[in-house]
Amino acid sequence: MTPMTEDDLTQAVLARMAESTDPRFAEIMRLLVKHLHAFVREADLTPEEWMHGIQFLTQVGQACTDKRQEFILLSDTLGVSMMVVMLEQLRAVRAGKGPKAQGTVPMTEATEATVLGPFYWEGAPESPLGADIAPGVKGEPTFYSGRVTDTRGEPVAGALLDIWSGDGDGFYDMQIEGAEMAARARIRTDADGRYWFWSIRPTYYPVPVDGPVGRMLGAMGRHPNRPGHIHLLVNAPGHVPLTTQLFVANSPYIDSDAVFGVRPSLVVDFEPHQPGTAPDGRRMDRPWWSAHHDFRLERAA
Amino acid sequence: MTPMTEDDLTQAVLARMAESTDPRFAEIMRLLVKHLHAFVREADLTPEEWMHGIQFLTQVGQACTDKRQEFILLSDTLGVSMMVVMLEQLRAVRAGKGPKAQGTVPMTEATEATVLGPFYWEGAPESPLGADIAPGVKGEPTFYSGRVTDTRGEPVAGALLDIWSGDGDGFYDMQIEGAEMAARARIRTDADGRYWFWSIRPTYYPVPVDGPVGRMLGAMGRHPNRPGHIHLLVNAPGHVPLTTQLFVANSPYIDSDAVFGVRPSLVVDFEPHQPGTAPDGRRMDRPWWSAHHDFRLERAA
Repeated sequence: MTPMTEDDLTQAVLARMAESTDPRFAEIMRLLVKHLHAFVREADLTPEEWMHGIQFLTQVGQACTDKRQEFILLSDTLGVSMMVVMLEQLRAVRAGKGPKAQGTVPMTEATEATVLGPFYWEGAPESPLGADIAPGVKGEPTFYSGRVTDTRGEPVAGALLDIWSGDGDGFYDMQIEGAEMAARARIRTDADGRYWFWSIRPTYYPVPVDGPVGRMLGAMGRHPNRPGHIHLLVNAPGHVPLTTQLFVANSPYIDSDAVFGVRPSLVVDFEPHQPGTAPDGRRMDRPWWSAHHDFRLERAA
Repeated sequence: MTPMTEDDLTQAVLARMAESTDPRFAEIMRLLVKHLHAFVREADLTPEEWMHGIQFLTQVGQACTDKRQEFILLSDTLGVSMMVVMLEQLRAVRAGKGPKAQGTVPMTEATEATVLGPFYWEGAPESPLGADIAPGVKGEPTFYSGRVTDTRGEPVAGALLDIWSGDGDGFYDMQIEGAEMAARARIRTDADGRYWFWSIRPTYYPVPVDGPVGRMLGAMGRHPNRPGHIHLLVNAPGHVPLTTQLFVANSPYIDSDAVFGVRPSLVVDFEPHQPGTAPDGRRMDRPWWSAHHDFRLERAA
């Protein structure tokens, strides 16, 4: 009938899922209840602690607006968002591996994915190869270049790079009320899969700390900063879409990203250059940086 | 530096808790991250499913008002609130067991606890023994009686019973805008630990289903009903406070309480009676019920 022990209680809740008409939803809820109960039991949560948890979750929900998603921030800072990214890429690799494992061409791994973050803005303008996508934006100019290939090393022509970053002070255009798009563009690779463009060298910045997640980080003794990075979506027909970031080597917080998005393979050395002529022939009258990175896309299954 | 695999990611998040100055908070967060990551991995959550979860939690937070706590309802309907109640009582028993296990008096178990629910209203009037605490309230009259003892069977004189229930249609006073207290009172046991009072026989009712938790129950194929029950807090100096309910045997949903609060030891047979004289001498001109239950309190450690 009814729970007599803590085990019985968990079983009673799990049994109540039997009538769901959506098997995947029922499976997710079963696993959620199993792990949630295991957490409450292992923590031996008191009523006061439970009530703190209820109040915290309520505050997180109430901090959400059209412009702010505090639950995503919570997920990010607990490493859940990054876990979902890793699982998604694993599934894509597994799905693709079957047929390709038959081939004789040696394979490299696809570029690693990382979190999308809250500052993606759909519909950035398409710019020509070599464009400066951050004219007038605060920060040190940087020449970005590289190639997009598949995991066999074959160039991917016409791959679309959707690029965005904060400025040299760590602020995104979206964070300024009424601002227009800045440091954003879409660029297509050439026939050899090559890309190059100018933007700025991104710097570290804190995630929003004026809400309940900020208070949680404080209580944990954690700083709220992300190391400098530039975001890229790489899309090409017949290939698995890639959501990734390039991280500035030696940026503050490179070893302790508040959202756990840094992966060693995505850390790029930004090379300093004196004023002079850049690889694309541009005359630079002030110091500039260059960053080179090749992207490898998984073929779609 | 940074996560290369899903295991590394979980370890990186756990390691980030090392700076917390509050060891219990750090322990809770470590266990939360461990079990939350285990859930996400075992469910192999997709980005779309994750986003549904984010949106659901946001809606739950935004459904909360001064008068409504949708996160507690979520906790209730997933059996988490009941788990916290069971753990709390286990801790009290464990704390008390040490000294008592030394004694020679055979022990019975304390009355089982269950959830407080959202309708407790502090400050109900103190009524004399035998009072009708629900005058004018819709529902079939019921004579409640029993004793409060400790787990040795010694009567607890002057124990305070804080009693509340919905009416015969399943509605609580608090659910009606501007309503005064009804079907609520505080009653003290006599020198022999006895109590008796009149109220109504409670009926089943649904938890609120017009919010996100209601939609979740629907998707699970679950009904939202609680079987008929009357709430009691039992407090006496030197004893562990008890939060419990008495459930009406054979009430609809007695085997499937939406919040998992029913415990077999708390199910009480309500006996039907024809019009006539009740045990306390009251003349009843319509049919009535009687319900008898003894409460046993754990001695405080």
